[in-house]
Amino acid sequence: MSETFEKLKPHLDKSRAYQTALVLLNFDSSTLAPKEAVAFTAQSIGILSGEAYASLINPEVKELLAELCTEEEQEKLSFNEKAIVKELKKTFEDLELIPPEEYQAYQILMAKAAPVWEEAKETNNYALYAPVLEEIIAYSKKFAGYKQKEGQKLYDVLLDQFEEGFTMEILDDFFGKLCEALVPVVHEIRKKPDLISIDCLRKTYDIEIQKKLSRFMAEYIGFDFNRGVMAESAHPFTTNLHNHDVRITNHYYEDKLEDAIFSVIHEGGHGLYELGVSDDITLTPIGGGSSMGMHESQSRFYENCLGRSYEFWLPLFDKVKEFFPEQLNGVTVDEFYRAINYAAPSLIRTAADELTYSFHVMIRYEIEKMIFNGDVDVKDLPAIWNQKYEEYLGVVPENDAEGILQDMHWSGGMFGYFPSYALGSAIAAQLFHYMQKKMPVKKYLSEGNLAPIREFLRENIHQYGAAKKTQQLLMDTTGEEFNPDYYIEYLTDKYSKLYEL
Amino acid sequence: MSETFEKLKPHLDKSRAYQTALVLLNFDSSTLAPKEAVAFTAQSIGILSGEAYASLINPEVKELLAELCTEEEQEKLSFNEKAIVKELKKTFEDLELIPPEEYQAYQILMAKAAPVWEEAKETNNYALYAPVLEEIIAYSKKFAGYKQKEGQKLYDVLLDQFEEGFTMEILDDFFGKLCEALVPVVHEIRKKPDLISIDCLRKTYDIEIQKKLSRFMAEYIGFDFNRGVMAESAHPFTTNLHNHDVRITNHYYEDKLEDAIFSVIHEGGHGLYELGVSDDITLTPIGGGSSMGMHESQSRFYENCLGRSYEFWLPLFDKVKEFFPEQLNGVTVDEFYRAINYAAPSLIRTAADELTYSFHVMIRYEIEKMIFNGDVDVKDLPAIWNQKYEEYLGVVPENDAEGILQDMHWSGGMFGYFPSYALGSAIAAQLFHYMQKKMPVKKYLSEGNLAPIREFLRENIHQYGAAKKTQQLLMDTTGEEFNPDYYIEYLTDKYSKLYEL
Repeated sequence: MSETFEKLKPHLDKSRAYQTALVLLNFDSSTLAPKEAVAFTAQSIGILSGEAYASLINPEVKELLAELCTEEEQEKLSFNEKAIVKELKKTFEDLELIPPEEYQAYQILMAKAAPVWEEAKETNNYALYAPVLEEIIAYSKKFAGYKQKEGQKLYDVLLDQFEEGFTMEILDDFFGKLCEALVPVVHEIRKKPDLISIDCLRKTYDIEIQKKLSRFMAEYIGFDFNRGVMAESAHPFTTNLHNHDVRITNHYYEDKLEDAIFSVIHEGGHGLYELGVSDDITLTPIGGGSSMGMHESQSRFYENCLGRSYEFWLPLFDKVKEFFPEQLNGVTVDEFYRAINYAAPSLIRTAADELTYSFHVMIRYEIEKMIFNGDVDVKDLPAIWNQKYEEYLGVVPENDAEGILQDMHWSGGMFGYFPSYALGSAIAAQLFHYMQKKMPVKKYLSEGNLAPIREFLRENIHQYGAAKKTQQLLMDTTGEEFNPDYYIEYLTDKYSKLYEL
Repeated sequence: MSETFEKLKPHLDKSRAYQTALVLLNFDSSTLAPKEAVAFTAQSIGILSGEAYASLINPEVKELLAELCTEEEQEKLSFNEKAIVKELKKTFEDLELIPPEEYQAYQILMAKAAPVWEEAKETNNYALYAPVLEEIIAYSKKFAGYKQKEGQKLYDVLLDQFEEGFTMEILDDFFGKLCEALVPVVHEIRKKPDLISIDCLRKTYDIEIQKKLSRFMAEYIGFDFNRGVMAESAHPFTTNLHNHDVRITNHYYEDKLEDAIFSVIHEGGHGLYELGVSDDITLTPIGGGSSMGMHESQSRFYENCLGRSYEFWLPLFDKVKEFFPEQLNGVTVDEFYRAINYAAPSLIRTAADELTYSFHVMIRYEIEKMIFNGDVDVKDLPAIWNQKYEEYLGVVPENDAEGILQDMHWSGGMFGYFPSYALGSAIAAQLFHYMQKKMPVKKYLSEGNLAPIREFLRENIHQYGAAKKTQQLLMDTTGEEFNPDYYIEYLTDKYSKLYEL
């Protein structure tokens, strides 16, 4: 046992208490808080954020961390303690590298940028957004520059923030293979727009009943409502105070049954990850999921690999029919399965189908590379965006609101984040492939027995929280590091069959 | 402008930010949080409570307060700033008087006491509770002793915590008059148990529709859902982050229509108080209601003086019928008015009617006086309790669960708190009396025009938050200090008519 680590603990606990408060304040703002509350509540959020920062970024913690990184101290640390120290050191260094006055100016810019982006999107006015985006890019370049190691490319610095070890080299290979294998599939599918009908999903589905169905679906995949809740918000998300208080949200459209269903399975997948983290690390800096991509792998695994498989619906579809007996009268499980897998190139990432989704991500990745490795002019980005949509997906936005203005990420300075979405899907497919070699996954699905699948993920991935990083989790679980081939194989196989290619 | 006060501000802001987080965490625990969350979340709550304490109780604040209390500095302060300094000084001194190790031991006792009380109540086992209660009483006596001024009686110290300036002298007079005038009324009413029928309130009322009706009722009395929300909890309560985020809760029983209706009017009254506090003080230590009694006066004013008046229902009852057309078919507004004012001595305080409610409070007040002024044995309290119920209300608990174990207050060390409930009703009647001299209140009610009433309260009471204390608010509003006569007159008059005495 390390006495130095014991001295670090109160700092960690304090920081965690602030985080808990901030998580709840943010969750509440998105679900329940009255609309006029925001300006007043923001003052408290601002102060608590400052305190959260100061609870870790201070000379005492710096000294303790330096000591804990010595060989002598490292020997005294457990596996989890080492991971905590490593995690903390990274956060510390990242924040410390940025001069406080620049950090503050950046926070002010962030607060300003969100409403500007919102207005620009609403009024379809990229010109309004461009100067702010330019400023944000300048800051991102500057901050990445502070962290840049010798020989490291600037965009790799950004990528590393969200997915440790996933460089452009890995991503170029990934997206390159994806492009080569699947662009032809996408183009073939475009020729058969009427092969699959989605009429059964477009009737009128009472929203109160959809809420009950969503709860049922969450329970079906194993979301534990003794340790979690479900609420409603404009955009579905998952958050948690700790592993005994995990919160998923959903949204509902009367004429889009699949939306609520797959959102709740998706968020439920995120939720199961957080519910599965070990008790002994849940209140520590490694208490959350390992990375954005790893988290997304769990949500996509449940949403797509399981939730959009035929076998998943075999024991389940009749139950769904009990919620909507009239609307689903006469619909077969085969028809339903095909409807929920309907694919067509489209303009909006968040509404994209499983097949075309990663191309939306790839387009953003390519543009981010241009921004950070080259010197593209911000005012030219919409044209580049539109040209890439045409090239890869064969569709062109009619305006920037359904083009480059659709995502809020860049207005929040989140460059390097998008690839995580596609990595998540690919990691999910890799896990799915491996899992099927280890256990009869499809048989379990057909029997409505999801426990062994959940248990496999808990044992191999969830319990570790962020103590292991993505590549290590994949290596320890599947015996190899990230390998995009399974994803490409999975998509090619699935959509060739569905669309009779 | 005082530079010293400017130096105090960051401390106040920090303390407020912690309070905001704690308010939300507690609200969330009572409404939404999953049941297994509590043990883990408690760790964060504990740390944030400690930080909240330390943000005010520290040498820097002590020094600033001392300076701000000098004549020179006082002259520089505004009315609100003076009130903030006074409020803070009281909190500071109260907490500082208690040795930290005793405070901590007391907190541990508090954490232990709640579940013991709960189990004792559930299993009807006073003997289990008695030793803990004895310990709590001993602490309360000790802590009150620290604060006791020369010549001050111990119980007056406790009363003053919740209602500044309301001593036993005032309360003895109040309860004495109440007893004299109303015990005979209560006994007369007991002879006519069948005069009023409550059958119309005992049908089956769908809970989802009750929720909609509750929201409608809250809006009807002027609760602003742009700045407030309504949620569900085991026991209704009101809380707020600030004056732009006020939260009321309600609960629902299928066979008790009046319960949800009067709970939402009651909590709505509390809510209107907090919504009415001025923007410039809402985030300060004087940003909440003035006192427990003053707060209760607003909830009781809405619940009873308005909500249980005949005129209130004249424009409203037909609208209520639209929510429950079958159940209320054929019921007249007269029958409904009588049903919601049905009175009968009973055992449970929280379920008591308007007439007998204050006697429940008086019994607790008399017992607390015995505890703190005399040396009653804790094991004798149940017998004393039962004897007093028989004397004043003519009913005797069959067991301690429906007797002395019914309230949680004593297990939380809240001695001196109960009188606030009765004071609230009496203050409400005093305000009601005065208001009727100034404006045609009953005409407004008959017309469904509650705005002038709400505005009167906002102007005279709500806006000041805790900057003015109860007696000053009453003096400034009604031209006299607390006067229980109006309450006695109000009840005597109302129930003599209702029960044809």
